[in-house]
Amino acid sequence: MVKRNYAAVPFTDVKLSDRFWAPRMDVNRIITLEHEYGECKKTGQVDAWDSASKLNRHIFYDSDLAKWIEAAAYSLATHPNPEVEKRIDDIVDMMQKLQMPDGYLNSYFINVAPEKRWKNLRDEHELYCAGHLMEAAVAYHQSTGKRKFLDVMCRYADHIDATFGVEPGKKRGYCGHEEIELALVKLYHETKNEKYLKLARYFVDERGKEPHYFNIEAQERGEDPKNFHFRTYDYCQAQVPVRELARVAGHAVRAMYIYAAMADLAGETDDQSLLDACDRLWENLSEKNMYITGGIGQTASNEGFTFDYDLPNETAYAETCASIGLVFWSHRLLQLDCDGKYADVMERALYNGVVSGVSLDGKTFFYGNPLETRGGYGRSEWFGCACCPPNVARLIASVGQYVYSVGGSEAMVHLYGQGEAQMKVNGGTLTLKQKTEYPWDGRVQITVEPPKDASEFTLKLRIPGWCRKATLKVNGSTLDLDGIVRKGYAAIGRTWNSGDVVELNLTMPVERVYAHPAVRQNFGYVALQRGPIVYCLEQTDHSEDIWRIAMPEDGELTARYAKDVLGGVTLIEGDALAASTEGWERKLYGDSPKMTPCKIKAVPYCTWANRGAGAMKVWLREESV
Amino acid sequence: MVKRNYAAVPFTDVKLSDRFWAPRMDVNRIITLEHEYGECKKTGQVDAWDSASKLNRHIFYDSDLAKWIEAAAYSLATHPNPEVEKRIDDIVDMMQKLQMPDGYLNSYFINVAPEKRWKNLRDEHELYCAGHLMEAAVAYHQSTGKRKFLDVMCRYADHIDATFGVEPGKKRGYCGHEEIELALVKLYHETKNEKYLKLARYFVDERGKEPHYFNIEAQERGEDPKNFHFRTYDYCQAQVPVRELARVAGHAVRAMYIYAAMADLAGETDDQSLLDACDRLWENLSEKNMYITGGIGQTASNEGFTFDYDLPNETAYAETCASIGLVFWSHRLLQLDCDGKYADVMERALYNGVVSGVSLDGKTFFYGNPLETRGGYGRSEWFGCACCPPNVARLIASVGQYVYSVGGSEAMVHLYGQGEAQMKVNGGTLTLKQKTEYPWDGRVQITVEPPKDASEFTLKLRIPGWCRKATLKVNGSTLDLDGIVRKGYAAIGRTWNSGDVVELNLTMPVERVYAHPAVRQNFGYVALQRGPIVYCLEQTDHSEDIWRIAMPEDGELTARYAKDVLGGVTLIEGDALAASTEGWERKLYGDSPKMTPCKIKAVPYCTWANRGAGAMKVWLREESV
Repeated sequence: MVKRNYAAVPFTDVKLSDRFWAPRMDVNRIITLEHEYGECKKTGQVDAWDSASKLNRHIFYDSDLAKWIEAAAYSLATHPNPEVEKRIDDIVDMMQKLQMPDGYLNSYFINVAPEKRWKNLRDEHELYCAGHLMEAAVAYHQSTGKRKFLDVMCRYADHIDATFGVEPGKKRGYCGHEEIELALVKLYHETKNEKYLKLARYFVDERGKEPHYFNIEAQERGEDPKNFHFRTYDYCQAQVPVRELARVAGHAVRAMYIYAAMADLAGETDDQSLLDACDRLWENLSEKNMYITGGIGQTASNEGFTFDYDLPNETAYAETCASIGLVFWSHRLLQLDCDGKYADVMERALYNGVVSGVSLDGKTFFYGNPLETRGGYGRSEWFGCACCPPNVARLIASVGQYVYSVGGSEAMVHLYGQGEAQMKVNGGTLTLKQKTEYPWDGRVQITVEPPKDASEFTLKLRIPGWCRKATLKVNGSTLDLDGIVRKGYAAIGRTWNSGDVVELNLTMPVERVYAHPAVRQNFGYVALQRGPIVYCLEQTDHSEDIWRIAMPEDGELTARYAKDVLGGVTLIEGDALAASTEGWERKLYGDSPKMTPCKIKAVPYCTWANRGAGAMKVWLREESV
Repeated sequence: MVKRNYAAVPFTDVKLSDRFWAPRMDVNRIITLEHEYGECKKTGQVDAWDSASKLNRHIFYDSDLAKWIEAAAYSLATHPNPEVEKRIDDIVDMMQKLQMPDGYLNSYFINVAPEKRWKNLRDEHELYCAGHLMEAAVAYHQSTGKRKFLDVMCRYADHIDATFGVEPGKKRGYCGHEEIELALVKLYHETKNEKYLKLARYFVDERGKEPHYFNIEAQERGEDPKNFHFRTYDYCQAQVPVRELARVAGHAVRAMYIYAAMADLAGETDDQSLLDACDRLWENLSEKNMYITGGIGQTASNEGFTFDYDLPNETAYAETCASIGLVFWSHRLLQLDCDGKYADVMERALYNGVVSGVSLDGKTFFYGNPLETRGGYGRSEWFGCACCPPNVARLIASVGQYVYSVGGSEAMVHLYGQGEAQMKVNGGTLTLKQKTEYPWDGRVQITVEPPKDASEFTLKLRIPGWCRKATLKVNGSTLDLDGIVRKGYAAIGRTWNSGDVVELNLTMPVERVYAHPAVRQNFGYVALQRGPIVYCLEQTDHSEDIWRIAMPEDGELTARYAKDVLGGVTLIEGDALAASTEGWERKLYGDSPKMTPCKIKAVPYCTWANRGAGAMKVWLREESV
């Protein structure tokens, strides 16, 4: 059960030609990656690898460039580009040159503060940077077959393995910012060297044990551990061993990365205790701590979680990286258990809180993704802490990997989108061709090309949690969904022949969505959703102040695809009411404001702030009638 | 017009025997003042005056004890107490002993950091402490006739006058925390020494001028002025000269104190430009930046103002001291122009956001007064920064002064409350006796005892802004209010005889109050008010989670006086709806929650958190029907 049952179909075998992802992938490759490389050059993140460089840089500079290399590597896999490859090779040369004889590699702690190496794992991100470099090296090796970067990182991993562990003489440390754990699992898969899996497991198992390593190393630095800036090791998921974590807490990105590693190791090492912890955390996150956009982390104060059912909208942090991390975690859990609850959250994050992180032109980025703003909050070209831009780039470059999984005689379709994919079923190659306008339309036609005619296998199609009514046909014959849907997937087990056609119709009306009544910030408020897409009002589409608009309970709402708006999106339009300020000129308190009719036009949340940084609102007051 | 037209009737001439203030004044005198003196002893605020004391204390320690002395002095004026007087005399002896030969007097900057004297007016509160000591000295002189404290403070004021000013050789400084300005006006009134009025005017006039004194002194300390913790001199109302202040900004208590001094000086020196600034600021405050409770200062980050129509409820700062400062300011403006708009705000603050600052037992205090909480927020016995407890004590001890004003042949009644007062009209003594259950009932009977029979003067009775329907009778004959009400006051000009009876009936139904539609936090929400009293729901009175309660638009609400509840208050009761969590066990988003009938019981906001620190809410979602 725990043992990983399924494997994601790699993005290299998935071609998307849809209207949602395909344009974004092109923009990502052609515009975003170039823009980001330019920023890395400009800010010194490339030149930091020069051994002569003594610039005072961020301790986590290495990680941003690493994520850019990873993203570029994914792009090279599908679109070779000698110029980009040369850039990366040059960087790898610098890295190799800078690497210490013992394998250590970190541009900051070699060039700027060598005396601080491994002195402050709690705060200084060394292993986090190492992890991102490992992920980049694995990706680059997969894309180009070139080993140099991978070899450099294996030497570094070997050094880390020699430095940390429970064996006598080793430090019993782990990183304040998780990341290396999941990276080591990738390195293990790429190299088949079990040492890396064992090291990943050490980092996961050691975390939060007493005597607490962060206390010990603080004392060794002559500091009082109580002076930890964030006060509690909850901040970095290290207040107790990870198997005892009771609820999501602390820095949201860190949480997602360690949870993802826990899911990895649960599958790799058949560890039910890690899966149990994941289940507990999943339930707490998805049922009590997740924005409707798939944004997570309610507050900027810890870049993370607050408390159950607390979902402030205007001050929502909902970091782009955190939603990306949520995709990583949910995708890993989905390979252990093909349960629609994981795919529903993954889809929610992908189509909303992740993609909102980058502008349609690919040049500007959100760090935080609030659910409402009075205006003045727009995307930036770069950040002092630039984690999000390259993170969203690597996600989009490899988004195809989230669409399908395979396992033995099963092939799973998690997401819908026009395109074509190849995958292994029963040892042969299965091709699936999707014809659909998803996410703007719920009709999906899948043409099946099995390895050979009369192939027996099971095709599992996800019936999304947002869908109230679905129908399914195979070669024109309707199947009874009630009989074949389990855990959100319709399992079609049959003998397949070339050209078999599956038709799935996911009814996709405009939905009024409400939050749990314990979410005090949304009490009396409604959000609009259609299919997986969450909507918002932007001021630019309204003459009335959108903060004064209320939705009549019975107002008709219609959906209309507008090909010229925001790169082509479906809009939701309808009648609403706006509170009038008439008679309120000279007073702050008075009688109930008059409500006057108005029109609303809602746009997908993921496309907001592409027409200026005006006011925006997801949750709208509902007016019962 | 600017020239002060009216004078408040001193609290020593106003006896309140009502059910709202009289018990609070007793508790204040018997319990609060004793408790606060105990805290001042315990924390070293008394012993700080010992010249041998080198304890590392707050730079503004002096001010808390000064406010306690002022409060105790007010209490002594009506209830002599040799023990309390002895305590104060002992403290004054210590002060006199500590005072420097040049008149300087500050326990911190004499005993602890003498090298820092007058080096950092921006941050270090020296003149603020001096101001509170002056107010205390004036109050103690008024109460006891003893001159020693007053003389000490005059010597200090003389030293300050010799140190600061535009004359060559003087520092052109002023305090980052205003207070001394209004204190010097009081000292001028008590001593008739115009030097002090002139000095007050200098501090007001100099504030915010360029080159900026705070920049100059920062540079003299070797600091970059840009490193000012609060970044902008808006924080202390010093970014521009006070006459140019466009809107309320910065630290709310500081703002109120300087605005009060501006009103003082407008009247004292016939300065229309200061009154114009006050008018502008008043309009901005009362029409765009004031909570329904009379709380002001929306955020903890600057202990002050944010932006127009921003009135967050749960994170409202609404410091007790700020509402007290608002009373000071509005009361001063009311003496310049008998306009009900000032008295309405003064009353709103007094009966709600000020009195909420102290528990009914007089032993615990709120610093911030939020308009809603999820619970866990209760009053404290004392604070590290203990400004609020003695501030509310001096306010309550002298609350009688806010009830009446006189001016020439006019006597004004601003507030209603059972009791009796003497005041000068046309050179003779007028006695007014109020018989009323105000604020729990709107019927007020005033018996007039003029200086002599057949006295001609005008009695002005305030018709509160909250009242939609009032009737007025004199000796049983109804007066046409439309004809005699101007600026919120009914002016009864006639020949008065002993025993004339005025009957004012202020209709006092339960009111549903709404905020300006631009207040996004209250859109779709309603508050309950009856007379001047703002209500709230407390969890302790409800089995349903009060955060999930909605008020049906047409629900009947009834008022009932409950003598055994919270010391005797009028409750508001009625039918409401509560969102059910039924069916929401395992999800965060779904269909509209079911609303189930429930009852509500609302209590006066000023009495909340006297039965444990549970959840509380002023603004309630309204359900249209």
